[in-house]
Amino acid sequence: MSSCFNGGINISLFGESHGKGIGVVIDNLPAGETIDLDKIGEFMARRAPKKDGTSTMRNEKDKPEILSGLFEGKTTGTPLAAVIFNEDQHSGDYGNISHIARPAHADYTGFLRYNGANDPRGGGHFSGRITAPLCFAGAVCGQILASRGITTGAHIRSLKGINDDCFDPVKVTAEQLENVKNRSFPTLLDSTEQQMRELILSARNNLDSVGGIVECAAVGFPAGIGSPMMDGLENIISRLVFSIPAVKGIEFGNGFDCANLFGSENNDEFALQNGKVVTKTNNHGGILGGISSGMPIIFRVAFKPTPSISRPQKSVDFKTMTEEELIIKGRHDPCIVPRAVPCIESALNIALLSALIENPVLPKSEV
Amino acid sequence: MSSCFNGGINISLFGESHGKGIGVVIDNLPAGETIDLDKIGEFMARRAPKKDGTSTMRNEKDKPEILSGLFEGKTTGTPLAAVIFNEDQHSGDYGNISHIARPAHADYTGFLRYNGANDPRGGGHFSGRITAPLCFAGAVCGQILASRGITTGAHIRSLKGINDDCFDPVKVTAEQLENVKNRSFPTLLDSTEQQMRELILSARNNLDSVGGIVECAAVGFPAGIGSPMMDGLENIISRLVFSIPAVKGIEFGNGFDCANLFGSENNDEFALQNGKVVTKTNNHGGILGGISSGMPIIFRVAFKPTPSISRPQKSVDFKTMTEEELIIKGRHDPCIVPRAVPCIESALNIALLSALIENPVLPKSEV
Amino acid sequence: MSSCFNGGINISLFGESHGKGIGVVIDNLPAGETIDLDKIGEFMARRAPKKDGTSTMRNEKDKPEILSGLFEGKTTGTPLAAVIFNEDQHSGDYGNISHIARPAHADYTGFLRYNGANDPRGGGHFSGRITAPLCFAGAVCGQILASRGITTGAHIRSLKGINDDCFDPVKVTAEQLENVKNRSFPTLLDSTEQQMRELILSARNNLDSVGGIVECAAVGFPAGIGSPMMDGLENIISRLVFSIPAVKGIEFGNGFDCANLFGSENNDEFALQNGKVVTKTNNHGGILGGISSGMPIIFRVAFKPTPSISRPQKSVDFKTMTEEELIIKGRHDPCIVPRAVPCIESALNIALLSALIENPVLPKSEV
Amino acid sequence: MSSCFNGGINISLFGESHGKGIGVVIDNLPAGETIDLDKIGEFMARRAPKKDGTSTMRNEKDKPEILSGLFEGKTTGTPLAAVIFNEDQHSGDYGNISHIARPAHADYTGFLRYNGANDPRGGGHFSGRITAPLCFAGAVCGQILASRGITTGAHIRSLKGINDDCFDPVKVTAEQLENVKNRSFPTLLDSTEQQMRELILSARNNLDSVGGIVECAAVGFPAGIGSPMMDGLENIISRLVFSIPAVKGIEFGNGFDCANLFGSENNDEFALQNGKVVTKTNNHGGILGGISSGMPIIFRVAFKPTPSISRPQKSVDFKTMTEEELIIKGRHDPCIVPRAVPCIESALNIALLSALIENPVLPKSEV
Repeated sequence: MSSCFNGGINISLFGESHGKGIGVVIDNLPAGETIDLDKIGEFMARRAPKKDGTSTMRNEKDKPEILSGLFEGKTTGTPLAAVIFNEDQHSGDYGNISHIARPAHADYTGFLRYNGANDPRGGGHFSGRITAPLCFAGAVCGQILASRGITTGAHIRSLKGINDDCFDPVKVTAEQLENVKNRSFPTLLDSTEQQMRELILSARNNLDSVGGIVECAAVGFPAGIGSPMMDGLENIISRLVFSIPAVKGIEFGNGFDCANLFGSENNDEFALQNGKVVTKTNNHGGILGGISSGMPIIFRVAFKPTPSISRPQKSVDFKTMTEEELIIKGRHDPCIVPRAVPCIESALNIALLSALIENPVLPKSEV
Repeated sequence: MSSCFNGGINISLFGESHGKGIGVVIDNLPAGETIDLDKIGEFMARRAPKKDGTSTMRNEKDKPEILSGLFEGKTTGTPLAAVIFNEDQHSGDYGNISHIARPAHADYTGFLRYNGANDPRGGGHFSGRITAPLCFAGAVCGQILASRGITTGAHIRSLKGINDDCFDPVKVTAEQLENVKNRSFPTLLDSTEQQMRELILSARNNLDSVGGIVECAAVGFPAGIGSPMMDGLENIISRLVFSIPAVKGIEFGNGFDCANLFGSENNDEFALQNGKVVTKTNNHGGILGGISSGMPIIFRVAFKPTPSISRPQKSVDFKTMTEEELIIKGRHDPCIVPRAVPCIESALNIALLSALIENPVLPKSEV
Repeated sequence: MSSCFNGGINISLFGESHGKGIGVVIDNLPAGETIDLDKIGEFMARRAPKKDGTSTMRNEKDKPEILSGLFEGKTTGTPLAAVIFNEDQHSGDYGNISHIARPAHADYTGFLRYNGANDPRGGGHFSGRITAPLCFAGAVCGQILASRGITTGAHIRSLKGINDDCFDPVKVTAEQLENVKNRSFPTLLDSTEQQMRELILSARNNLDSVGGIVECAAVGFPAGIGSPMMDGLENIISRLVFSIPAVKGIEFGNGFDCANLFGSENNDEFALQNGKVVTKTNNHGGILGGISSGMPIIFRVAFKPTPSISRPQKSVDFKTMTEEELIIKGRHDPCIVPRAVPCIESALNIALLSALIENPVLPKSEV
Repeated sequence: MSSCFNGGINISLFGESHGKGIGVVIDNLPAGETIDLDKIGEFMARRAPKKDGTSTMRNEKDKPEILSGLFEGKTTGTPLAAVIFNEDQHSGDYGNISHIARPAHADYTGFLRYNGANDPRGGGHFSGRITAPLCFAGAVCGQILASRGITTGAHIRSLKGINDDCFDPVKVTAEQLENVKNRSFPTLLDSTEQQMRELILSARNNLDSVGGIVECAAVGFPAGIGSPMMDGLENIISRLVFSIPAVKGIEFGNGFDCANLFGSENNDEFALQNGKVVTKTNNHGGILGGISSGMPIIFRVAFKPTPSISRPQKSVDFKTMTEEELIIKGRHDPCIVPRAVPCIESALNIALLSALIENPVLPKSEV
């Protein structure tokens, strides 16, 4: 099903960019969990467009209204539904391009898939706007994880050759993960923030856009959670991550670099530390055989440059089947990577909570 | 569920490395499809160990017995079950390491996950042997796809700095994909085959192992198949690919490289070719918004070096909780990448057939 | 997952009786289907409380707002979400009974299941109010079925010994099914309507309630749809029907009566009629081996009397663990069976559309 | 998916009546559970044909071979697979009827569903033989339940007007449920056994068959397990029960009789007994709002008479589309109800274990 995630929790996302509202239903959350709506607002604000030129000028308030599933500040255990009503709609901006496929967008594939009936305004259900309810769900799951001592966080690892520092795969701390969230731009270093901001503004001025890589980590996640094969943590995380538009790749631990190593270089030897099993290095990214090892979970995600650029592009009108030149109007992000950071965190939060809940637990045998 | 894939078709894998048998149940296959068992044997032989020193010396016959779902050479439409009985078992080889965690293996995480009850012999259900029934399923799905003009194929893209040629993302043909299958070593170039063989034998002699990257493609897949968000083709393919042990990353189209491009460089412009909508370049890898564009589907998968190496390694006995030195005996692949090539094809075959079947089709309205 | 149905279409229901809103997300609907919102209103009005004394006096407007999935009057193919905001809330009516279990209600079991965190007001998510969005989904599915010549309908088969006529299992027509929908009280006969109305009013005056049986049928459904074993039409229909509060049983065709027959009496012999395979009798209820036979689909559902009655009842305060006498205040249906009729139709509509979509369809082999 | 059950555990059934083997894969069982294979044999023997004339004369040994998932007598937590090889096959008996639809069988509907490609021998995948692996799964689940003090059992409630005693819905004990299993014919009373045996033999002699009703119960199941709406215990049990061929109806607690009661008669008042919440009566059958109440779970299932009778029957050859007379040869059960008793228990065992595992359990919040 296109917009349903099924696991220990179920998530059903809905909405179109210029429709009446977007939202999410989250089923099978544990009951009695305290949810802080202000903190959810702060989480979602990290995804919201900024006024600093690095993102779209659209004014997305994105305030979720809770319809069900919360009672006296706690989860009821029954479905938690939230809706964000679309307020700032400029359909007119998109009216004239509806049948000329925007390159790197889903206009043409969506038209085929839905026999031309899908909502074409602003990308419809394919729009990055649907990541707003994903972030709502991620923020909810993140609060439940946090109450068990599990912290997740992410930063921009690189933008077109500008590299931020890395999370130390062995020593990364909850404090470091939290610190990034308080920055106005999600890098670890001040210097890379400055360079990246300049790159984005420059791309904007050139009517262009730029891609990048997000690095994401979790600490405090218990060892022994997950499953081999189809429901390993990598499988669940990647399924959720690829639901975010513009993602082109994902790698865990040392990822693609492991292809250049010998086994004797890549294997993480086990050791004891304060009576606990650890690995001295963490090339495996905290997951072995689909199951958490107790080491930090770490992965990176590649984002393509925003497809919407204002330069003239060659394309095809797929209704008239003629070649046309296209100029995309409207307000667009010259780089979606900064706003994608909490989206990736959300995918991880949902995956980790889902895996925790899905692990089979039975009362002990009485015999 | 650890070993079930659910989609347009359902796949339930079972078995342990040294148990009685391994196998698979495939549900919801279309009825009446001709299955050529000899060709399945040929497909699976590509995964089987070779006698040329590049893989384990174990003698895995891996001949699947069909228990149900085939009648007079055609699929019945009801569950297709196949079992491969384990014949060549050397449990003794593994007896002495059962509680010392082999680095980069799932011994420790599996022990935690299953409270010590999982079958530890040869990795149990975590063993790469379970990819044999995955290849059976992949071979079945591949034959059904082939009868609709859809061809998939893969090759070793690189091993530790030795780079094979690439599939041309725009012009790759079914013939090229088929040609690799007929080679004794799955590269595009003779020269890289020679270099890679030498690298693997050298690693073997050094009691070491080596990782690599597999590139996989599909041609002939119709445009308009897939879904946005959770059930996009990338989501389905990656969920299946991460079920294969030792996979650390996946990227579609130009993948992580897109993070270094401007939108004006990365966007694939649309054009008409023989009255058909195509893109001039294929950075998107044949998938836009989770849906096939009609261009070749192309992705790459990173494999870590085989964790089992015969050098002494430091580790922990997780039962006695003491640090120990470990020497892994037994017969192991110095590089699993050549044998992984048909496994990746299998993941793609299952994903594509599942997506084809899952696309909602209703009889036309009568009104 | 408590409130998700997964099949050819996915349905995610949410809401609590006295919360902000109730609603539904429907995923995987076919694209381009015309939806008539006025007709949906008419369908849902059949479930709404009546002013004639046979139902609660609560004023439930139950007007669904479409948030997504409809564009220019047609389904987009992406998730269709609808919300009904709760307007007429009288929480005060329920305040004093929150920890004394109402007999035959889910107060006590819900408290255990959700560790006391579920919304207790008016039954919360266990309330019959959640059948309003179920009816919305059923009305949508029913319109899509209708456009393919498939008609469903239901009537009250019996109330405490008062028996309405039956649908003729062989000859029932679309017209007969439609006719019941136009009646203010869903019986086939005027005489039984009169008797049943009197029975309900009498139960109301006695501070009591009454149960009954609903009979439901579909005509025009094509033969050959469904599956053996777990996804047979009976399995799907019964899973959906038991999601409706107060259902205690379901039977297909001649149902429990078949237990009193010889095979020679029960078997429906096949015959040809106008070149079509039919059965002369329809004890099987239009389903054989989980698959539609082309004969009318017919089943009956038993509803218990409304648990909420205003008489004093003995019960337990499950917080203080003391025995208490309970008097339920508030406005309740003396008989929910008339309002349940469109709910049962909805379950059938969802099941039939889901099964139609789920049937695997592949483009024909080219070879 | 036709033959997959998904819940807290996944079950994938496969096989055809006259194929090479039938079997099951059970995924997500808890690890480390002791399984007694002899007791599984005893359980399955209750389903096997008897030599006393009440069932088919076929010699079904039905000895399951465990392929995976058991190690040193305990579940590994990874998929448990078992196969039963078909030995006693008389395909010739069925050869001449392959295209004349046997009344009340799935020959015609299966032919349509699978475009004529399904295995027609002995009903193929529609055969009652597939309940053998269902019973294997039920026996495994039953042993795990038993180790937690949960007991299930069933008996023949009635055969064509011959009524056995009932389980007392309030006082039924584990001992009573176990006692039925030790009887050679599953009734509570000796007298009804005698009458029923005579009825079955008489039907057999008349080349006829007879249906009946099975009553099933569970005691010791903890209160608070299950979910509202789609995943209530009734939904799960009924989904599994309707996977058993010949089932036509199911009712919980007092079932269809509740339609003849006033609320004041039907409501089960709560009381305290030894400090525990109980109900004085058990019309609700141990389930309220889809969730267990702690009272015995009780339900009844209607079975139609065996469709295969040796009398001449009128039917249609659906290949030639001509009306034909049909005489079914071969060996058939004159009444499948006695052999269905452990099948119904199996459905309940699977449902209850699945619900137990599915209930979300998280480590307590640390904050």
